[in-house]
Amino acid sequence: MKIMKKVLITGTVAFDDIETPNGNSGKVIGGAGTYIGLASSLFTQNSAIVSIVGEDFPNDEITFLNSRGINTQMVERVMGGKTFYWKGRYHDNMISRDTLATELNVLEKFNPSINSEFSSSEIILLGNLHPTVQKSVINQSKNPNNFLIMDTMNFWMENALEELILVIEQVNLLVINDEEALQLTSEKNIFKAAHKILEMGPTSVIIKKGEHGSVYVDENNKYIIPAFPLKSIVDPTGAGDSYVGGIAGYLSIKKNIGFEEIKKAMLYGTLTASFCVERFGVEGLKNLNLETLNKRLKIFKSYLT
Amino acid sequence: MKIMKKVLITGTVAFDDIETPNGNSGKVIGGAGTYIGLASSLFTQNSAIVSIVGEDFPNDEITFLNSRGINTQMVERVMGGKTFYWKGRYHDNMISRDTLATELNVLEKFNPSINSEFSSSEIILLGNLHPTVQKSVINQSKNPNNFLIMDTMNFWMENALEELILVIEQVNLLVINDEEALQLTSEKNIFKAAHKILEMGPTSVIIKKGEHGSVYVDENNKYIIPAFPLKSIVDPTGAGDSYVGGIAGYLSIKKNIGFEEIKKAMLYGTLTASFCVERFGVEGLKNLNLETLNKRLKIFKSYLT
Repeated sequence: MKIMKKVLITGTVAFDDIETPNGNSGKVIGGAGTYIGLASSLFTQNSAIVSIVGEDFPNDEITFLNSRGINTQMVERVMGGKTFYWKGRYHDNMISRDTLATELNVLEKFNPSINSEFSSSEIILLGNLHPTVQKSVINQSKNPNNFLIMDTMNFWMENALEELILVIEQVNLLVINDEEALQLTSEKNIFKAAHKILEMGPTSVIIKKGEHGSVYVDENNKYIIPAFPLKSIVDPTGAGDSYVGGIAGYLSIKKNIGFEEIKKAMLYGTLTASFCVERFGVEGLKNLNLETLNKRLKIFKSYLT
Repeated sequence: MKIMKKVLITGTVAFDDIETPNGNSGKVIGGAGTYIGLASSLFTQNSAIVSIVGEDFPNDEITFLNSRGINTQMVERVMGGKTFYWKGRYHDNMISRDTLATELNVLEKFNPSINSEFSSSEIILLGNLHPTVQKSVINQSKNPNNFLIMDTMNFWMENALEELILVIEQVNLLVINDEEALQLTSEKNIFKAAHKILEMGPTSVIIKKGEHGSVYVDENNKYIIPAFPLKSIVDPTGAGDSYVGGIAGYLSIKKNIGFEEIKKAMLYGTLTASFCVERFGVEGLKNLNLETLNKRLKIFKSYLT
């Protein structure tokens, strides 16, 4: 029997407006929930997003998510409300960026409500959101054996540290980028930071290093992989979300979630992210399937051994 | 029969004075030639350094190099002259550094002379020096099938670009760090830079990314490895030289020098560098042997697969 664990995803479903040295996206759909959902849908048709949008969010896009097997019943639509909107401009290095506009809109009043079908989810992916929202999703879970994956960002360290720490101590896998890991732990070295994070509660941690790959650490194991080598990047938006979405998707079709499965999941997450950044917004993910992903996996493995 | 190709190394044998956030070395021996020689001596006792020192350079240190099987007959000693001296201070990140003093001294008049024994060397390692000096070493080689490995730095791109390009076009393997590869090729992406470098003449190129590892590219192959994860770095001086010295040393005991051998050599180079940076100056290399290196190799491999 094919295993397909339920994956509950929380994250924004939003509008982005992205400027890069190579061009602008204009107003496009985005948000952590959207990227994570599309990435995980490469592996599973048993996922749901819990999020919130305004009246202005296109029905077509919701329908598209559904066509990829993503349940959107918990994507609340606020009539008369406006969807979360982010506008940013990437610098020449395609890593650092300036936020030009952030309009929280309906996100300000987001109070996630998990339905009975997905409250039993085996995998819960807490995308980057206010830790209080992440905590609320955890509290609504009815599955004591769930695997909790958490993403976060420096903004919450600076503005909601206490709440953030309470979420971190509950998760199975914290996924965080290198600078944020250093900031969270006041360390200068990512491996020291990783061990400090394990002391905060998570059983495992992945530190993302962007173009330099990622690192997994738990009490007994380490795993280090580079990023897939790309000759050009069109738009880095959603890379981290695609990465963690690919991980959750791959883990959802595995019986056990252990070190061996997480390593393979990291390879898939890395490659999912590599396709994401080759196009503007979610276009890279929209045009991706598992066959294409597996072709690149074969190439990637040849670079590593 | 055990293969032990002759390795001819050119590079400085010098005094360093290193300040780091964790302490200072005081005046210690250093220089690219010294680091490369010690690193390659882990594998071979058939190497020689061609370099120049002043009257002030300790005989004991020369004797120590000899005890490691490094031939120093071509290390010219200038009576009444002073040895090359570099003083630098590393920033908190242990990557960027300020040069506090550079005294070329006897290096200003360095005119390498290769003896007949080593003019037939199968491997020539052109450590970071003025490209005119590197060129002179190449010209004195009597082995038409030599394998030329070259290191360089941004200083020569800014001050001797024409001469530098003439050396680059002759080498088999250029080893260069990421920023320098981008500077040399006016590219923003290291893989694009690597391909441009191949068009300049080398049959292969390694781009070093410091704590993020290194990347090999030739016309048909890529290989990507991370750095060995260290929880702390005492002194990054000599990391790049140890890396390339380890590569040359490993290749010198192999019959063929092809992609498979270079991959293994990069693993050894990476680990040699990891031991180097754990102590001040050359102390990490002085206390290292192949057995210790192989133990870490086993651990490192477990992180990669």
